[in-house]
Amino acid sequence: MAIQPITEAILRQTIRKRPADSHKGTYGRVVLIGGNARYGGAIIMATTAAIYAGAGLTTTLTDPLNITALHARMPEAMVVDFHDLKLLRELTEAANSIVIGPGLGTDDDSLSVLQTVLAGVSVDQSVTIDGSAIDLIASHDLSLPQAKLIFTPHEMEWQRLSGLSISQQTPANNTRLAQQLGGIIVLKKHHTQVLFEEQTFENPGGTPAMATGGMGDTLAGMVGGFTAQFANQLNAVLSAVFIHSQIADDLAHNAYVVLPTQISEEIPWYMKQYSLPQS
Amino acid sequence: MAIQPITEAILRQTIRKRPADSHKGTYGRVVLIGGNARYGGAIIMATTAAIYAGAGLTTTLTDPLNITALHARMPEAMVVDFHDLKLLRELTEAANSIVIGPGLGTDDDSLSVLQTVLAGVSVDQSVTIDGSAIDLIASHDLSLPQAKLIFTPHEMEWQRLSGLSISQQTPANNTRLAQQLGGIIVLKKHHTQVLFEEQTFENPGGTPAMATGGMGDTLAGMVGGFTAQFANQLNAVLSAVFIHSQIADDLAHNAYVVLPTQISEEIPWYMKQYSLPQS
Amino acid sequence: MAIQPITEAILRQTIRKRPADSHKGTYGRVVLIGGNARYGGAIIMATTAAIYAGAGLTTTLTDPLNITALHARMPEAMVVDFHDLKLLRELTEAANSIVIGPGLGTDDDSLSVLQTVLAGVSVDQSVTIDGSAIDLIASHDLSLPQAKLIFTPHEMEWQRLSGLSISQQTPANNTRLAQQLGGIIVLKKHHTQVLFEEQTFENPGGTPAMATGGMGDTLAGMVGGFTAQFANQLNAVLSAVFIHSQIADDLAHNAYVVLPTQISEEIPWYMKQYSLPQS
Amino acid sequence: MAIQPITEAILRQTIRKRPADSHKGTYGRVVLIGGNARYGGAIIMATTAAIYAGAGLTTTLTDPLNITALHARMPEAMVVDFHDLKLLRELTEAANSIVIGPGLGTDDDSLSVLQTVLAGVSVDQSVTIDGSAIDLIASHDLSLPQAKLIFTPHEMEWQRLSGLSISQQTPANNTRLAQQLGGIIVLKKHHTQVLFEEQTFENPGGTPAMATGGMGDTLAGMVGGFTAQFANQLNAVLSAVFIHSQIADDLAHNAYVVLPTQISEEIPWYMKQYSLPQS
Repeated sequence: MAIQPITEAILRQTIRKRPADSHKGTYGRVVLIGGNARYGGAIIMATTAAIYAGAGLTTTLTDPLNITALHARMPEAMVVDFHDLKLLRELTEAANSIVIGPGLGTDDDSLSVLQTVLAGVSVDQSVTIDGSAIDLIASHDLSLPQAKLIFTPHEMEWQRLSGLSISQQTPANNTRLAQQLGGIIVLKKHHTQVLFEEQTFENPGGTPAMATGGMGDTLAGMVGGFTAQFANQLNAVLSAVFIHSQIADDLAHNAYVVLPTQISEEIPWYMKQYSLPQS
Repeated sequence: MAIQPITEAILRQTIRKRPADSHKGTYGRVVLIGGNARYGGAIIMATTAAIYAGAGLTTTLTDPLNITALHARMPEAMVVDFHDLKLLRELTEAANSIVIGPGLGTDDDSLSVLQTVLAGVSVDQSVTIDGSAIDLIASHDLSLPQAKLIFTPHEMEWQRLSGLSISQQTPANNTRLAQQLGGIIVLKKHHTQVLFEEQTFENPGGTPAMATGGMGDTLAGMVGGFTAQFANQLNAVLSAVFIHSQIADDLAHNAYVVLPTQISEEIPWYMKQYSLPQS
Repeated sequence: MAIQPITEAILRQTIRKRPADSHKGTYGRVVLIGGNARYGGAIIMATTAAIYAGAGLTTTLTDPLNITALHARMPEAMVVDFHDLKLLRELTEAANSIVIGPGLGTDDDSLSVLQTVLAGVSVDQSVTIDGSAIDLIASHDLSLPQAKLIFTPHEMEWQRLSGLSISQQTPANNTRLAQQLGGIIVLKKHHTQVLFEEQTFENPGGTPAMATGGMGDTLAGMVGGFTAQFANQLNAVLSAVFIHSQIADDLAHNAYVVLPTQISEEIPWYMKQYSLPQS
Repeated sequence: MAIQPITEAILRQTIRKRPADSHKGTYGRVVLIGGNARYGGAIIMATTAAIYAGAGLTTTLTDPLNITALHARMPEAMVVDFHDLKLLRELTEAANSIVIGPGLGTDDDSLSVLQTVLAGVSVDQSVTIDGSAIDLIASHDLSLPQAKLIFTPHEMEWQRLSGLSISQQTPANNTRLAQQLGGIIVLKKHHTQVLFEEQTFENPGGTPAMATGGMGDTLAGMVGGFTAQFANQLNAVLSAVFIHSQIADDLAHNAYVVLPTQISEEIPWYMKQYSLPQS
């Protein structure tokens, strides 16, 4: 099957005018899990993206070291120590959309956190698996739950998850492995691809000005925010991938490097454009 | 009695040019109480709103975990650990306007804090009861002090406080229960209503772009700031409700979602407009 | 002697073009001391003002609780725990300009800090005494060191320091007491006055939009920054007082309330105007 | 040999359009080490500069006291306690470009950190030695590793490092000592000079509005970011020196003092201009 470009048509179809009589519950509960003592910035950036992407209620589970910095940037987030596995389980179960992985790390604590999350998710929940969570699943051969799974690997992480070396990552092989794995794969690279069942979509945009730490965390947070709001999970993911690079492309007209948080701050303006009737 | 719209006439009447020879004491002492370890962002957002709304002196009592993030955002606030019940009582007694509830939580500590506050308030003080404080009053059937009480429930909190299920929340029932309870009720919903004695006011504005965590905390902080400055408590509340959604409506012309702190930062510009002679 | 208005002529005379071959040492070492656990915001705001006012090197001694919030806002400042009295003494002695008092508090620790500072200053140093430091000097009848002293009381603090009740604060009485005390008095009120020897200056500007917590801390920091840079201490103080309210007046054209940190961020643009040749 | 001015030609040659098919690894791993309990702001400012200068991945090793403030400003950075010498060694070895010194201090801990770094670097790595690290090397007569060394002393630090008093710092003496030391010397002063082998370059720009604490830390971070991205180390250093003062000169048209972080935020826009084809 031919690779399809992601187009603005998908975004106009997905990002609709919000109904007047709605409230924060209408736009979903997003729970983000990650940020150990060294990679706290990753979960801060993912959380920032989820909130600017319009999530109704956002809770972040992280190392307690990161709580103050997160709140200093984003008081809109609720925060919980991710070592409290009981509360982690409880909050995971109550979420509409879960993002696990940004800055999570790969030590024993990280593994316990991931296992608790995977054990708690159910079939109606969206679960975005990013960064260290992908590595942990690959290295510990963890079994995956029944849920609306989304994986957001870059090529090296995809290699570890799929077993395909980068040179083996052909469209046919990628599709085959993605189907085995189940869910949606966001394969991050120059012209990011989104794989779902037999379909492959390619993102037309993207710029080397995005080549800086935290871009992936930001995308993961956007995917969390969009999947919480928009029922069609594939379209939610495609829209997040598209807008993420679209904002970067626009900022890169004037900037040699674009910082991840600069992208997040622009999200509401871009979403607004797609929600308006076309003129 | 018919439901009256909140109009700009009330705001022009309320938000007057400040007298030249005045000082910070003229604009009141606001004390905000809330923010446990998980919901610290709520009290940060409420405090932010109170300060931008023009409160003369603002003190926040919260879990010590939240002090650094609050100061990193708003050095204008003074801060105290809310576990120090003696100081909490003392500061409560010295306030003109008290806001209790944003992110307070509902555990035993939260209850002690609330009981200390309620025991310390007196008849001339404005007391805004929000969020968890409403739930604690409902669940523990706490008796209410003689004071200028303002409740800011959303529909589910109003159900818990009034005993009226959402379908029972008719104008007649709401008015009856509000009068039993005493004080001013801000019933937050699509077209928020303000109930006072036999009167019901309805806010014409509001947008689903506001449907994100922290909007209510921000409104509570604005109510605290306005009731500290403007003697007519009903008009102060009506003005806060109106400007809160007016700013959001304006920002939503260009944004799919509006963050609570974005609203707070705009408050001084909007208040200024209402304080000017009409041309 | 007649009260003289502070005019722009004094500012043009004081804020001169910086010499090309200069370095941060040229613009002075400012040391600010204050900020206990409750009033940490005060020293953050004073430090912010000193840095934006152009101090060459700025060190803040404060309760360790405030260090992270200060750095999150102003990484330009160096920070030290003010309980380390040995280091406090050492840094005080090395400073060109010292600001003591914003948020210092009045407990025993605060008193030890103040006494250490007063014991360490010498005749060539500028010492701005603000807020709680004024109260401590008044209540403990502390003797004042030989130094370039500047006091920045509001009317109630001036009452405690001078013994003059507000109704007794006539020009003649104020001048007499100011001369007994020595140094420059900045008497903060509607149309702030600056008293020095037999002279009294009055600030033409000022707006009730400034009537919010932290304005005085910001002025104290500006005085610290200006006295470190400009040799004529009286003119430095007059310039700080004038620009502080000038910025507020300009911002207040559009804002009902002006926050102290908004003023600080504007200082470099205003100073620049006065440093240019007049056209 | 004549002193050559740094010109825009070097910048256009150095800061090239990024290749489309690149990723964060392409732009290097920068590791910054510094920031003790008192000088934490220095490493925050250096880190900020490295990230805005386009480093692919940035890790900061510092006193744990500084982690939250750093993350509150720059979630893009990874952070590690610099007392963990094993991890410090490991991260140093994995870096493309190392910056050591901003706010490091000169106590025993600082010395251990510096010695660990110097013992770990290898010939292909860029190592920028700034501030306290220069002083420690001078005072402990530490031997220097084989690496691409860059020293960023101001005149007093250069005196301590080279043994040349400021009056002895003639072009001939400076060049002789720089060649003995090896590497590139950035001699910070009015019209900063860059010494490399027999060549001396002079920066045409610079303004006394830069005479404020943190300017040098910002330059060190920029040098780290540029040397990680651009293979020609001399040109990378020259470009960083030029843009740093160019931004300050531009901002100083309107500002009496320019803060270091204001410079960092402008870097991407300036780099972009040099990466475009000349019209």
